[in-house]
Amino acid sequence: MRTPALHGVHKLARVKVERPVFARYASFQPAPKLGVSDLNPATLEAKYAVRGSIPIMADKLRSQMSKGHHGLPFDHVISANIGNPQQLDQKPLSWYRQTLSLVQYPALLEKLDSMDPKMRDSLYPSDVIDRARRLLKSIGSVGAYSHSQGDPLIRQSVANFIAQRDGYTADPNSIFLTAGASAAVSYLIQVLASGNNTGFLIPIPQYPLYAASISLNNAVPIGYYLNEAHDWSVDPKQIRTLIKENKAKGVVPKCLVVINPGNPTGSILSEHDIEQILAIAADHGLVVIADEVYQENVFQGKFVSMKKVLARLLEEDPQTYGNVQLASLHSVSKGVSGECGQRGGYFELVGFAEEVQEIILKLASINLCPVVTGQVLVELMVNHPKKGSPSYEHYHCEVSAIHKDLLKRATLLFESFQKMTDVECNKPQGAMYLFPRLKFSEETYPKLFEHCREIKLTPDEFYCTQLLKKTGVCSVPGNGFGQVPGTYHLRTTFLPPGTKWIDAWVRFHGDFVAKYKSS
Amino acid sequence: MRTPALHGVHKLARVKVERPVFARYASFQPAPKLGVSDLNPATLEAKYAVRGSIPIMADKLRSQMSKGHHGLPFDHVISANIGNPQQLDQKPLSWYRQTLSLVQYPALLEKLDSMDPKMRDSLYPSDVIDRARRLLKSIGSVGAYSHSQGDPLIRQSVANFIAQRDGYTADPNSIFLTAGASAAVSYLIQVLASGNNTGFLIPIPQYPLYAASISLNNAVPIGYYLNEAHDWSVDPKQIRTLIKENKAKGVVPKCLVVINPGNPTGSILSEHDIEQILAIAADHGLVVIADEVYQENVFQGKFVSMKKVLARLLEEDPQTYGNVQLASLHSVSKGVSGECGQRGGYFELVGFAEEVQEIILKLASINLCPVVTGQVLVELMVNHPKKGSPSYEHYHCEVSAIHKDLLKRATLLFESFQKMTDVECNKPQGAMYLFPRLKFSEETYPKLFEHCREIKLTPDEFYCTQLLKKTGVCSVPGNGFGQVPGTYHLRTTFLPPGTKWIDAWVRFHGDFVAKYKSS
Repeated sequence: MRTPALHGVHKLARVKVERPVFARYASFQPAPKLGVSDLNPATLEAKYAVRGSIPIMADKLRSQMSKGHHGLPFDHVISANIGNPQQLDQKPLSWYRQTLSLVQYPALLEKLDSMDPKMRDSLYPSDVIDRARRLLKSIGSVGAYSHSQGDPLIRQSVANFIAQRDGYTADPNSIFLTAGASAAVSYLIQVLASGNNTGFLIPIPQYPLYAASISLNNAVPIGYYLNEAHDWSVDPKQIRTLIKENKAKGVVPKCLVVINPGNPTGSILSEHDIEQILAIAADHGLVVIADEVYQENVFQGKFVSMKKVLARLLEEDPQTYGNVQLASLHSVSKGVSGECGQRGGYFELVGFAEEVQEIILKLASINLCPVVTGQVLVELMVNHPKKGSPSYEHYHCEVSAIHKDLLKRATLLFESFQKMTDVECNKPQGAMYLFPRLKFSEETYPKLFEHCREIKLTPDEFYCTQLLKKTGVCSVPGNGFGQVPGTYHLRTTFLPPGTKWIDAWVRFHGDFVAKYKSS
Repeated sequence: MRTPALHGVHKLARVKVERPVFARYASFQPAPKLGVSDLNPATLEAKYAVRGSIPIMADKLRSQMSKGHHGLPFDHVISANIGNPQQLDQKPLSWYRQTLSLVQYPALLEKLDSMDPKMRDSLYPSDVIDRARRLLKSIGSVGAYSHSQGDPLIRQSVANFIAQRDGYTADPNSIFLTAGASAAVSYLIQVLASGNNTGFLIPIPQYPLYAASISLNNAVPIGYYLNEAHDWSVDPKQIRTLIKENKAKGVVPKCLVVINPGNPTGSILSEHDIEQILAIAADHGLVVIADEVYQENVFQGKFVSMKKVLARLLEEDPQTYGNVQLASLHSVSKGVSGECGQRGGYFELVGFAEEVQEIILKLASINLCPVVTGQVLVELMVNHPKKGSPSYEHYHCEVSAIHKDLLKRATLLFESFQKMTDVECNKPQGAMYLFPRLKFSEETYPKLFEHCREIKLTPDEFYCTQLLKKTGVCSVPGNGFGQVPGTYHLRTTFLPPGTKWIDAWVRFHGDFVAKYKSS
């Protein structure tokens, strides 16, 4: 076995190739390989803090630990930087995995048929077997490409689910199955971004996928601030002013992104806030992207979908709202599903011109099709066991255990933040994160600010770096999501199990304050 | 249940929203919704014929047929437009699906443990159980996000596979697992395309994913013709001339795409051709994208990987070849796997600057991670049952049956083309397609050309449209792949089972010639 010598010693070339004469002169300088300055500048500029410098540092620590004798003051790196439930102890729902194992291995269905019924029932409930057969009848094989928009049976199930949730019908032809919500964001932004005068209104703080996708498409992010003092609610006046100012500068806002329940904020929008957003969209003919992937993760208050409010407004005042274009996103990665690695999701379009929808379909078709097992998971999420079916009790038992556990974890972490000096955190309403504010200022923490200037980190970056190095807890600094200048936050998921990591954080915070706060 | 009235009658608005005064005047004209002219022009321009107008027509016929009483002269639409083996009768390998069913449902592993051994062995061979456990130990859960570059254990397996295939080591840190090869193409082109002066050399005919991705990134496709008369081989002189001409025009070629075995051509490059390509890459510091997804689909001749030849040249002459940057693509969608819908693949980078590789990783991380079950399939493809293990015999039996069957189908279709008047086709060497030439000319088929001008279709488009309408066979006209002006081709996969569709095609062709050829 030989390793290709990329930077080895020159040897006589034994291969005869037809090369131009200049290349054979001894003085010939070979063309250099590509450096970053040769690359697409948009790909250099795009930032994605959730897997940015601190998580990369965490990876290095993890690899250092795996070699033993690491000398670090902790035993595990806790990945609180990302909402990845099944990496953090959440068990997948049996209903999902049983059905998936059968659609992956249809020969097992035949074996089950010829099995003693008692044995069969102990392996697979009959409604799982029925659903697997029904899905296979529609998709054929999970190894075959499906329609680029997704399997028709599953799109119909999604439409039924939306109708059930909202009380308004949905059209399966306007539903696109996707490989997670990220793929949906990527298609929609790519289609809408027609140059560096296209504006996308995004909340600040935002989930950084939005800013990254806008960068990659050379469009302009227009950040509107959420109001931290009022549970991170929207300020419609501010949005209207931003639209006006940007239009005056020649930037045309085409799209308004809303994340509800909020990421990273964990807040839930009121129906009144949603109405204000739709009124703005109507006045300016905007596309609204409603990122509703956390719709099942609700602790307090009530989730109301953007589609439901739009449908009502269209009924009440079709002339005003007929120009609103809504893309609502959902995913199997969050909620009680937590199936991030399986890449399933969907988006529903309302009010889009048919020709625009066709372009979106073309983009989807260039990517061939969303992974078919991810599509199957969407079906299982939106069309779960009904009362009276063999899987019903167990399914509901698992689901309610997850809901209880998430609430417990969120509350525990929230209460710990409340006890920390100079940390302020809104009460969690939904999603999987807390976004506490670190109330550091030049006046109260002069040593911190001086040190940060020296090492060229912001105070939130420095705090998160130290937290990782001292406790193994990997979080993401607020500047990865955006924040009001002069304020400092961090995002952490509350998913990690146990309290040991929280205790370590509390101790770390005490030490940090003791070291950097002026007495 | 109410349907949102998108274009209904105006009703009094009952909702109170804070809207500017102008919007409340009766004379106010609502902002229009977006039309195609408001969209990203690159998304309008991108073309993907494999799922283009003829396949869309086929979808419509299929839906017409499902309603019964369709009055069409055939019973089935045959999707010969795309290499989708499992839609066309190819059975998935048991080894793959057994292992996948266990990693999807780990609780079954425990149930198997407590089962009567005879019963257990009848359900799952022990090496399947072992592999599933080993994979689960590394990935945790297929529902958790993995590393954005892919699971480390699986990347190591890929490196071992490449080393075994080529006789040169591979570095797992330079291997990226992806959701099929399409994702790899999309990352690489996006990173390299730094504006409308970036050139990508692509073969003509090409797999249209390349032209589409280049369009989407506003870069310049530079088509180099393959030589149909010599089994679609490359012409290095032509490529060198194109580079020179384009540089003179201010277009900088950064990348040269090679598809081997060829799509749509079905040809296999000789080692000599590969050497010529690498010499060009060395002279100009190019990135070579070697699309080798059909490396298992070889009927005649021998597949030699671009990496193997580069590794040898680097050993012989590191100074000359040290600047070549190679990205080799592979996929679980083709070969004997045919797991298109599961979206698994990988690419290996050789010779890339570390900072460039980091940007590619960042792009991958914005998409979070490739679907984890697709990664598992890559493992199962590159690391299959070894001699002596319980699955070995059955695995090889299935694999060799697929190989035999594919050769049979390719030969059958090829021989039918040979019998058709004015059709010329190179003997299939590899891949899953035939790309016959329709030898139509203005002189011999004046009625055809006259008719085509009237209905504004090219002769190949018209032929494929008629073929679909008369026989239900859905193929793709040559102009979707590119062809020498004045020549006409079509691409068809040879995967559909049986001979009925081929017989129908032969009859159709006879009628077509009789109708349009001048006597």
